[in-house]
Amino acid sequence: MSKVGDFQVLHVDSSTGARLGRLTTAHGEVDTPVFMPVGTQATVKAMTPQELLDLDTQIVLGNTYHLHIRPGEKIIEKCGGLHRFMGWPRAILTDSGGYQVFSLAKLNRISDEGVEFQSHFDGARHFLGPVEVMEIQRRLGSDIAMVLDECTPYPCDRNYACKALERTLAWAALCARQPRADGQLVFGIVQGSVYDDLRARCASELVGIGFDGYAIGGVSVGEPDELIIKGIDDSIGSLPADKPRYLMGVGTMHHMIEAVARGVDMFDCVIPTRLARHGTAFTRKGRYPVKAAAYSEDARPIEEDCGCYACRNFSRAYVRHLMNTGEILGIRLLSLHNLFRYREFMNEIRKAIAENRLADYQRHTGLGQQDRGEKDRESNE
Amino acid sequence: MSKVGDFQVLHVDSSTGARLGRLTTAHGEVDTPVFMPVGTQATVKAMTPQELLDLDTQIVLGNTYHLHIRPGEKIIEKCGGLHRFMGWPRAILTDSGGYQVFSLAKLNRISDEGVEFQSHFDGARHFLGPVEVMEIQRRLGSDIAMVLDECTPYPCDRNYACKALERTLAWAALCARQPRADGQLVFGIVQGSVYDDLRARCASELVGIGFDGYAIGGVSVGEPDELIIKGIDDSIGSLPADKPRYLMGVGTMHHMIEAVARGVDMFDCVIPTRLARHGTAFTRKGRYPVKAAAYSEDARPIEEDCGCYACRNFSRAYVRHLMNTGEILGIRLLSLHNLFRYREFMNEIRKAIAENRLADYQRHTGLGQQDRGEKDRESNE
Repeated sequence: MSKVGDFQVLHVDSSTGARLGRLTTAHGEVDTPVFMPVGTQATVKAMTPQELLDLDTQIVLGNTYHLHIRPGEKIIEKCGGLHRFMGWPRAILTDSGGYQVFSLAKLNRISDEGVEFQSHFDGARHFLGPVEVMEIQRRLGSDIAMVLDECTPYPCDRNYACKALERTLAWAALCARQPRADGQLVFGIVQGSVYDDLRARCASELVGIGFDGYAIGGVSVGEPDELIIKGIDDSIGSLPADKPRYLMGVGTMHHMIEAVARGVDMFDCVIPTRLARHGTAFTRKGRYPVKAAAYSEDARPIEEDCGCYACRNFSRAYVRHLMNTGEILGIRLLSLHNLFRYREFMNEIRKAIAENRLADYQRHTGLGQQDRGEKDRESNE
Repeated sequence: MSKVGDFQVLHVDSSTGARLGRLTTAHGEVDTPVFMPVGTQATVKAMTPQELLDLDTQIVLGNTYHLHIRPGEKIIEKCGGLHRFMGWPRAILTDSGGYQVFSLAKLNRISDEGVEFQSHFDGARHFLGPVEVMEIQRRLGSDIAMVLDECTPYPCDRNYACKALERTLAWAALCARQPRADGQLVFGIVQGSVYDDLRARCASELVGIGFDGYAIGGVSVGEPDELIIKGIDDSIGSLPADKPRYLMGVGTMHHMIEAVARGVDMFDCVIPTRLARHGTAFTRKGRYPVKAAAYSEDARPIEEDCGCYACRNFSRAYVRHLMNTGEILGIRLLSLHNLFRYREFMNEIRKAIAENRLADYQRHTGLGQQDRGEKDRESNE
């Protein structure tokens, strides 16, 4: 019987380094590789928890920064914690808020103790340091808490990357010593920008501190594709095989499959839900804008042979009409379909790993070529 | 076995004139008194057809004006008609578009042939007359089509009310002779503003033409409460007992119960869904704004002892948070709850009629006193 925090590597694909794994959290098991839908403000946008359960979702992400600003962790704690508040019975990973503080808020002062900033919402002053973010996450009661890190932008000179790395490591050590919620796991985050030695050093020092899992941060921040892959390669070599690896904020399909082949286990990204709100449908053959005039009389479903509720019941012509008239149902149907597509994608990946044919799957699916150049993480969905 | 168009009066409440009825349409039976959720643009806002079925909804309304503007009846016809287009297997009533043309569009010219106007959407010129609105509704394939009428505003001088009445009657006669979709019923509309003799004459002449049902139009257009009731009384006396009576655009609970007591069978209104989007929850005890600070830590459901999905799973504090952060799920949960509340209300009314105690039900429920003064119909949800 596995206990909270256990991560079993069930199989390693013989054609790549991809792993099939199972992480045990206080709110159930998570089969990896896994894509985690993003629930920034305690809701995966436009979806009910029941609809996420119907998609066999095992884990969602919540954003500490946003939840701290509104409604505040005190209210969520009073309402019984984040799971109860949002009616979600399975696992939740919360980020530390660091990424949003650096990208979204107005920074006032950064020190070794933390970051003073004004919120994007109302300009109110806040302070978040390693102690504060762990305390917020403890009160939220997430299953996986992330340490506070300093996420460097791209490009980033070596000098700044070194300084951010030192701070990231000091904060990680402090985060590791903070009180946690019952059964809460804590993941460290590898930074180091595009510098291989910095990433390797960061990873090794984090392993020295000891975490329940390790994230690769500071990638997909605007750098070219090959540097995203390099960032993964530079980080992963120093991470232990028996702990889960999480590539933060990356969710384009071609990036995910490249990362999975290198041994990454977990992903999160806003794109299936955000692009749904912009009218983009994901399919096996790529993505397309449902609002286009070409679909005005198209009686086919969003994706042919798709089994989701949207595709079983509605035409492109209808979804296009809904999107063009600003109807919420259009966003709902596209969000549902896109998350269904993502689930199918991850299922196919796990199956290919189990059958030692991920390299083949990657070669023979045209997936994701259309995705290139798409910004795949943003600070505020 | 009843056939399409049959309306059975199953029981008349001995304490009022309220009727229990059953209307047979080409897409199933409708138990009356009934509240019809409004699906202006081929969707009841924020709801899926499945969620409406889960609420035992038997009939929804679609707006001919909006559907004519976007996506156009030709596209809907090509997609198999409105039922198939919007994935709704049960009955649909479409209005004629007259109300929207007069209230929402920019009018250019009114003649006996119809109305030339520019759409509220893009200013494009359109012409709708009795022939056109029946042709559009035929192509949409609704179960109940409404005749084109001239809905007078309030106040309205007798002279204008007379002229509008003549036009309404001439248009009704023309509409009655137009081709229909298979099994499509057509309802006439009583106008006459606040003048009892005009309403009586209009009703009698419509009955002379002969329709499958009769609507009371031109009420709840800004007049005081007592004139709404008078408008119903002035119209209903001349309508046959064996045909359904539909009070257009009225859906506040205290108006509906007054109208039911006078023998009205059908209602439609945007308020349960529109007010949901504004953050208003309907309860047995009245309505309240969920966004209010008072609910920020309130762990109770939207309405205590309510069995809807929203109330079974979420707190006011959560719904308030969702509404205050602009999350679609907040609108979804409130729409779902409000429509559930409306369904419960109509179920209670039907039960009270069956048990000859509607007068008592009306006296002992405090319902709707809070509703007074609320605008209950608008041209564009």
